[in-house]
Amino acid sequence: MDVVEVVPTFEQYAYTFGGVAPLRRVRPGTALRVWSEDAFNGTLRSTEDLSGAKVDLRFINPQTGPFLVEGAEPGDALALHFVAMEPARDWGASAAIPFFGGLTSTDRVATLQDPLPDTTWIYELDRAANTVTFAAQRTDLQIALPVEPMLGTVGVAPPGGEVRSSLVPERFGGNMDTPQMRPGATCFLPVFVPGALFSVGDGHYRQGEGEACGTAVEGAMTTTLLVDLVKGGAPGWPRLEDDTHWMTVGSSRPLEDAWRIGQVELVRWFGELYGLHPMDAYQLLSQISEVPIANVVDVNYSAVVKARKSLLPPASAYGGLHDELRRRAASLR
Amino acid sequence: MDVVEVVPTFEQYAYTFGGVAPLRRVRPGTALRVWSEDAFNGTLRSTEDLSGAKVDLRFINPQTGPFLVEGAEPGDALALHFVAMEPARDWGASAAIPFFGGLTSTDRVATLQDPLPDTTWIYELDRAANTVTFAAQRTDLQIALPVEPMLGTVGVAPPGGEVRSSLVPERFGGNMDTPQMRPGATCFLPVFVPGALFSVGDGHYRQGEGEACGTAVEGAMTTTLLVDLVKGGAPGWPRLEDDTHWMTVGSSRPLEDAWRIGQVELVRWFGELYGLHPMDAYQLLSQISEVPIANVVDVNYSAVVKARKSLLPPASAYGGLHDELRRRAASLR
Amino acid sequence: MDVVEVVPTFEQYAYTFGGVAPLRRVRPGTALRVWSEDAFNGTLRSTEDLSGAKVDLRFINPQTGPFLVEGAEPGDALALHFVAMEPARDWGASAAIPFFGGLTSTDRVATLQDPLPDTTWIYELDRAANTVTFAAQRTDLQIALPVEPMLGTVGVAPPGGEVRSSLVPERFGGNMDTPQMRPGATCFLPVFVPGALFSVGDGHYRQGEGEACGTAVEGAMTTTLLVDLVKGGAPGWPRLEDDTHWMTVGSSRPLEDAWRIGQVELVRWFGELYGLHPMDAYQLLSQISEVPIANVVDVNYSAVVKARKSLLPPASAYGGLHDELRRRAASLR
Amino acid sequence: MDVVEVVPTFEQYAYTFGGVAPLRRVRPGTALRVWSEDAFNGTLRSTEDLSGAKVDLRFINPQTGPFLVEGAEPGDALALHFVAMEPARDWGASAAIPFFGGLTSTDRVATLQDPLPDTTWIYELDRAANTVTFAAQRTDLQIALPVEPMLGTVGVAPPGGEVRSSLVPERFGGNMDTPQMRPGATCFLPVFVPGALFSVGDGHYRQGEGEACGTAVEGAMTTTLLVDLVKGGAPGWPRLEDDTHWMTVGSSRPLEDAWRIGQVELVRWFGELYGLHPMDAYQLLSQISEVPIANVVDVNYSAVVKARKSLLPPASAYGGLHDELRRRAASLR
Repeated sequence: MDVVEVVPTFEQYAYTFGGVAPLRRVRPGTALRVWSEDAFNGTLRSTEDLSGAKVDLRFINPQTGPFLVEGAEPGDALALHFVAMEPARDWGASAAIPFFGGLTSTDRVATLQDPLPDTTWIYELDRAANTVTFAAQRTDLQIALPVEPMLGTVGVAPPGGEVRSSLVPERFGGNMDTPQMRPGATCFLPVFVPGALFSVGDGHYRQGEGEACGTAVEGAMTTTLLVDLVKGGAPGWPRLEDDTHWMTVGSSRPLEDAWRIGQVELVRWFGELYGLHPMDAYQLLSQISEVPIANVVDVNYSAVVKARKSLLPPASAYGGLHDELRRRAASLR
Repeated sequence: MDVVEVVPTFEQYAYTFGGVAPLRRVRPGTALRVWSEDAFNGTLRSTEDLSGAKVDLRFINPQTGPFLVEGAEPGDALALHFVAMEPARDWGASAAIPFFGGLTSTDRVATLQDPLPDTTWIYELDRAANTVTFAAQRTDLQIALPVEPMLGTVGVAPPGGEVRSSLVPERFGGNMDTPQMRPGATCFLPVFVPGALFSVGDGHYRQGEGEACGTAVEGAMTTTLLVDLVKGGAPGWPRLEDDTHWMTVGSSRPLEDAWRIGQVELVRWFGELYGLHPMDAYQLLSQISEVPIANVVDVNYSAVVKARKSLLPPASAYGGLHDELRRRAASLR
Repeated sequence: MDVVEVVPTFEQYAYTFGGVAPLRRVRPGTALRVWSEDAFNGTLRSTEDLSGAKVDLRFINPQTGPFLVEGAEPGDALALHFVAMEPARDWGASAAIPFFGGLTSTDRVATLQDPLPDTTWIYELDRAANTVTFAAQRTDLQIALPVEPMLGTVGVAPPGGEVRSSLVPERFGGNMDTPQMRPGATCFLPVFVPGALFSVGDGHYRQGEGEACGTAVEGAMTTTLLVDLVKGGAPGWPRLEDDTHWMTVGSSRPLEDAWRIGQVELVRWFGELYGLHPMDAYQLLSQISEVPIANVVDVNYSAVVKARKSLLPPASAYGGLHDELRRRAASLR
Repeated sequence: MDVVEVVPTFEQYAYTFGGVAPLRRVRPGTALRVWSEDAFNGTLRSTEDLSGAKVDLRFINPQTGPFLVEGAEPGDALALHFVAMEPARDWGASAAIPFFGGLTSTDRVATLQDPLPDTTWIYELDRAANTVTFAAQRTDLQIALPVEPMLGTVGVAPPGGEVRSSLVPERFGGNMDTPQMRPGATCFLPVFVPGALFSVGDGHYRQGEGEACGTAVEGAMTTTLLVDLVKGGAPGWPRLEDDTHWMTVGSSRPLEDAWRIGQVELVRWFGELYGLHPMDAYQLLSQISEVPIANVVDVNYSAVVKARKSLLPPASAYGGLHDELRRRAASLR
């Protein structure tokens, strides 16, 4: 299988879902190898580079795309299988941006307090050890942490003619910021416009659940993914499948509503997978769900609801597409 | 080490934190083996037993205790190390109680809709396989699930002269409903009144994160625990330590505030453990936190914030008390 | 009608709903004239008195009571009609207490930011003009504002054996902090324990809706009220009636749930008053409700839902008790 | 002064803020008389017309506009003064739309419950009496209610290239659904794109605060308004001024954040109007704010924060523009 390489120029980045002309057309079945810039658009390169001075708010969270998927129509499910994510630089950056993040007041959780100090951390990447190093700013502590690459942002054009900032997680995917969006996972997104118009970005060399300070170890990323389509298979909200789990992602505020959305979507999926009545799926999931918070910092908060396959009878979703994509991915490498 | 056995009579159960005379006095260092009744007070024994007819709201979530810990004073930390939890019956029960749970309107999330159908599920325990079996009510699906015992409710008497229902999770612990409260874990609670007056209950043979329908596989439990005290060590909110993780539990509404509380408490703990400035701890935890939701169904919702010890330099809390309790626990068995 | 005068000593104040022995027994029909201390317990007497130094957290929001109402039983409605509220001092105090209030992070909305500056404002009372004067601290602006006395806190002992801080608004009333709790209003509270055990306090010489900074113009108050009882008439949540409006008060978090509770309770009341089906009451109230937020600062937030009587056909609640109490009140003066 | 009449054809309605070509260019100072269709796009004309069958989700909440205001640039304030709102039909409609509204689960407050019954109410308009009549569906009660016309939706194109559904209230205004948006009021909106691109719609013949069921007495409306511009005067969030009040509107979820936003914006405005330090403005507003909830049903909830001018020293905003617009409006009639 051929792999289509995409490395956008600065002018080609997208900053919204919807409202942008396609960067490229792809057929279902295509393998892509795409370069994505980091969420700061490469502006934070040392601890002296503070977000207030360097980050241009017009150019944050640049997305690579959108890709027009031939044949994709509203009501279909877009399937994106992530084969590999490779850090494209030798360092990642994180920042406490004033009035942004989970442990500070924000433009929404509006208070009269002063902001936290604008601070940047640089994480050096050790490719041999496959680690990035946290370096405390006020003390000498340094900690090498495993690289666990993921994409913060994966989405399609929204419904109803809306155009949303790439900072938004929603029904259409977007800035969900979950560590589950990693190599080996297949993401199923509802298609709302002809061609789906998906884009990806916001590579994280690693991220904790909740993304507490609002930014992960942000880094340029080279992502290999397979694109496919399930006619008529649109889920209500983003779904993820990997070798071990069935997963859904809900995004809203307050956080309990993000959870409710994800939990109801997994109840629905269990109806499809196991023929369970909603009350029975509700009960079963009450005893087996894993619920890692994704982010508590974005325009909507995101919660992931997971069910471990090994606890459950065999089942396959979308005609076994995830397994099929795993096979195709293996043949790529 | 001797183990003190406690099996309460029906009249001896406590239904509140605070407001109850001590069941027994214990010294720091004591090992207890306590029997706890299930959250339904044993009233749901078949799928014909519906909560609306059988559960007496005066007698729900019975607690075994309170135990007066000699020498415990406000400002101390009570340490409870869970050695073992053994199902005390051969079945557990779960129920969708009308207007209670996460995917229904409630007395708080008040709507005009009809309730979901009052439904009870019984989980048969297979001691040899160490499983409980989910049996769907509307279809034939049965699934054997591993027993993973935990206590939903562990708490002390609240501050300020308050008396709270055993259904409440709060700063004083209580009905946190997290699967992390399991054998091998040490729970550190702030002491608010002389003697601490802790109690335990709400055994779950297993529970998913979020406890979606509001009830786990509820079952009578025999719990072996070690009681200890850290003079002057009161945390701001409940902390947990096991062999693999540092953990905090925040409880409030909306759910993001439960998370904020837990995340700030772990920032504080990281200041103690690693000498980190709050901004550095905030940053480090942004990249390593694990955040499993505990419950989205109780009077307050609860979120757990965890950090994996293996990612971090060696550190010890409370003079290495958890490791010491592990050693003592080993000598018990 | 005789009026029973009650002026507690310092030792007699109550700081909780429930958990306190009755201060006095009263019969339904009794008129009371009670003195209440301010929420700071009189500790803030000049702008030099800062809350951090002066306010003793054990003694905040002192309540006058509890009063045991003879014959009151669970399921009854306690009716308290407020005849008059007179400022009992010549000044009131307000404060921005660190980490308390609506435009700051708090122990629940937990952030890592510094607190707002601890600040006290003193409002001089001009009895002739019936004003209190706001005096800016950083500029010279002074503004005389009309005195509009109200009680922040009116409640009964909670159900389920709970004891709650006087800072809490809940189903049992408590610290609802609504300007609607003023002379001319009748408050209907559900009775949960024999004797009801109600208390009152937290006089405000005036307060804006939301009580943004967390404290009103707090002042000692002399309140004249009539006590009555409606056998079997317990509302689901606190109700208020005055000459112009039907009102309910919901208290919870997040704020939309406080509103939901109040709105559903008014739907129920409209069923009783006008025989309306819940869907019709829901519709009618959608077009006529007035919804002033009460507080966004307490342990629970409170919202008031009101319907203007002049828009509606004549109706009477609880056998016309409010009108009857108005007549009795008139005879008192 | 000439009045420009605008009556759109069906094809000319806008369903988003942003993303639509201007319907017409206007100069600051222009008087407009615009016709707006009702939020159901005229599809509900009898109680037999149920929303599930009749309402086309592609065509809800049609907006009249957008109007390109000559000279308007990002950073300016658009001033819209509402001179008159006249019901353009002899009936209004309201509906309980399944899974939409405040006392039902929704796509966000997701539960497994059945929806409330899809129900439509028709309100006949009596022009002589200036009333609309509520007619209960399950009983015979009819109540004539005063017409109090308002516009639910007034907004400009959003920042950042976003395009938002006309159902959304936000920083750019939009579907705020507050009864304060009525004749006599001036609305100040931040301009985000050249020309501002404002539109108006969603006429309500009357609406309760909170818009509990999700729809008001929806009706086609003829609105006369004056358009003006304040160079460099962009507020942070929508502001309103009428003869009696200074007002701000915050929109977010949960509802307390909508309130926080509005309260902080009014603190800022009081800094401009009275030279008050934020702490003093916070204190003053704590004692005088009126806070009517606007809606608890839209994509964001909205809260209005008001301060009564008669309590305050004289002040003028934007060079006294509101008074000037009142004078111009008087000359129109």
